[in-house]
Amino acid sequence: MNALLKLLPIKYPIIQAGMVYVSGGKLAAASAEAGILGVVGAGSMSPDLLKHHLEKAKSLTRHPERLAVNIPQLYEKTSEQIEVSLRAGIKIIITSAGSPKAHTTELKKAGCVVMHVTSTPELAKKCEDAGCDAVIAEGFEAGGHNGRDEITTLVLIPQVVKAVKIPVIAAGGIGDGKGMAAAFSLGASGVQMGTRFLATQESSAHENFKKLVIESRSDSTMLMMKKVVPVRLLKNAFYEEVKALEEKNASKEELVALLGKGRARLGMLEGNLSEGELEAGQIAAIVSDLPTVKELVPRILREYDEAVKNLVRVSEWEKKA
Amino acid sequence: MNALLKLLPIKYPIIQAGMVYVSGGKLAAASAEAGILGVVGAGSMSPDLLKHHLEKAKSLTRHPERLAVNIPQLYEKTSEQIEVSLRAGIKIIITSAGSPKAHTTELKKAGCVVMHVTSTPELAKKCEDAGCDAVIAEGFEAGGHNGRDEITTLVLIPQVVKAVKIPVIAAGGIGDGKGMAAAFSLGASGVQMGTRFLATQESSAHENFKKLVIESRSDSTMLMMKKVVPVRLLKNAFYEEVKALEEKNASKEELVALLGKGRARLGMLEGNLSEGELEAGQIAAIVSDLPTVKELVPRILREYDEAVKNLVRVSEWEKKA
Repeated sequence: MNALLKLLPIKYPIIQAGMVYVSGGKLAAASAEAGILGVVGAGSMSPDLLKHHLEKAKSLTRHPERLAVNIPQLYEKTSEQIEVSLRAGIKIIITSAGSPKAHTTELKKAGCVVMHVTSTPELAKKCEDAGCDAVIAEGFEAGGHNGRDEITTLVLIPQVVKAVKIPVIAAGGIGDGKGMAAAFSLGASGVQMGTRFLATQESSAHENFKKLVIESRSDSTMLMMKKVVPVRLLKNAFYEEVKALEEKNASKEELVALLGKGRARLGMLEGNLSEGELEAGQIAAIVSDLPTVKELVPRILREYDEAVKNLVRVSEWEKKA
Repeated sequence: MNALLKLLPIKYPIIQAGMVYVSGGKLAAASAEAGILGVVGAGSMSPDLLKHHLEKAKSLTRHPERLAVNIPQLYEKTSEQIEVSLRAGIKIIITSAGSPKAHTTELKKAGCVVMHVTSTPELAKKCEDAGCDAVIAEGFEAGGHNGRDEITTLVLIPQVVKAVKIPVIAAGGIGDGKGMAAAFSLGASGVQMGTRFLATQESSAHENFKKLVIESRSDSTMLMMKKVVPVRLLKNAFYEEVKALEEKNASKEELVALLGKGRARLGMLEGNLSEGELEAGQIAAIVSDLPTVKELVPRILREYDEAVKNLVRVSEWEKKA
């Protein structure tokens, strides 16, 4: 049996990523209803706002057991966010950034399933050693924050699968059933999709931002800000400013100053496409519509089945000879 | 029937990449014998040396029809290399760098199958329009020369498959049968593997270089020299020099001066692991032995079959529910 389905109370081994400003209660609930893991992205939320989104999510689904929270361990509020999540009855926590040791023991004691995001096989092993139940291995093509070694999903997944015994969820560059079949071929037990769920009716991304994502082409994103923390951005006026600074070999401080405060909120939530920071993955290039989650999930599953069905065995090739 | 097997007189839809200093007549012949496309890498060869390698390849295989030449259109000698290849009876030419329009018509008139290497869906379309019979779509994780848009194989392949009707061969980040199954899931009709064939008994890479490749880890390569032409390198002392210059925001001219002449030859052929330029792909991390091509190809096919066999259909997941 599929290792992720054994671990989580979901029907299909798909995780809707918990993205800042994008993954609120509405999106998470729609995902839970569709049979996959619905993740609220706590990174952009105060504990109070997180509480609000979790209550909203619970009110919109008959499957609250399929709800999870993604907590990037970047801020002082991490402990409070964990507390709010546990009090809301959330039993599945995804941690990212920082050490998997920071909160895994405490979360396991509270009865949670814990998954940590990794961009290297070495960190994946540390996640397993820290007691995590699964790892989400995210490649270079992913949107938003990214690893420093620039390892792509295609190369990362087999290494992580080899490094750990716990289930591996592939993330980065997956936006349809074909990508899902590719990830499973590499030994993943599940996939996490971000940009694909950003471009749904239920995501809380601004309509302008959604529109830009579905119009994206193959060269529309780039990994930037490597001196601060690598982040994959859609190319817009803000990106051009970052690029110009980087070409001048600007310092980390200058980049942080340009970033300022609220750029991500400005772009992703408020829809200011020129001055805002717009995080998206390379897969934006193949995302071209705005379905409901209810329409999207069965479509991905059909594409997956079709991709698997189309794979022929070596003996088929040998018939020609 | 598999589109690449229809196009080429090979048994399995695998191309052994034509790598500078690595892919000589011996390697190409061993590949042809194993049922795949054996490619001589002309990039590092004078027309006379190319002639020598083609004669050698033909003398070592009963399947000269499975031999091809990779000609990077970077040098003045391109036309001479084409002439030498045609005179040696080669009927399959892979062109890379430069425009697919440059030589495709002439090669088609000479009765050749022509494939061009691309790193974007837009260029893939131009290849098709220029009359190419197939495209080799190569992602960011590939070793050596690389595209400027940093599109990974996982994201690139579906876009190229959508952009053209001719067969698409996936390259970059593929080193075993699992990666091959992933590429086919994405719609590729074949795969090209470079670093995996570098680490074989028959490749002409220096033993020191081969050893370094099989000892590589997940973070052992990086895409460098973006101001000149992006190239993925193994990290060694030469890489550290490039990195130091780039961190100082060195000009293109300074980088070209550091590169100088003969660095690739020094590293890859002569085995100077500190001063030489060592081109390899991210997949070096999972390449860990030095088999003969005769051992390697059946192993890849077994892994591919195993990966395909292990993929379950959606209905299997639904049984749990």
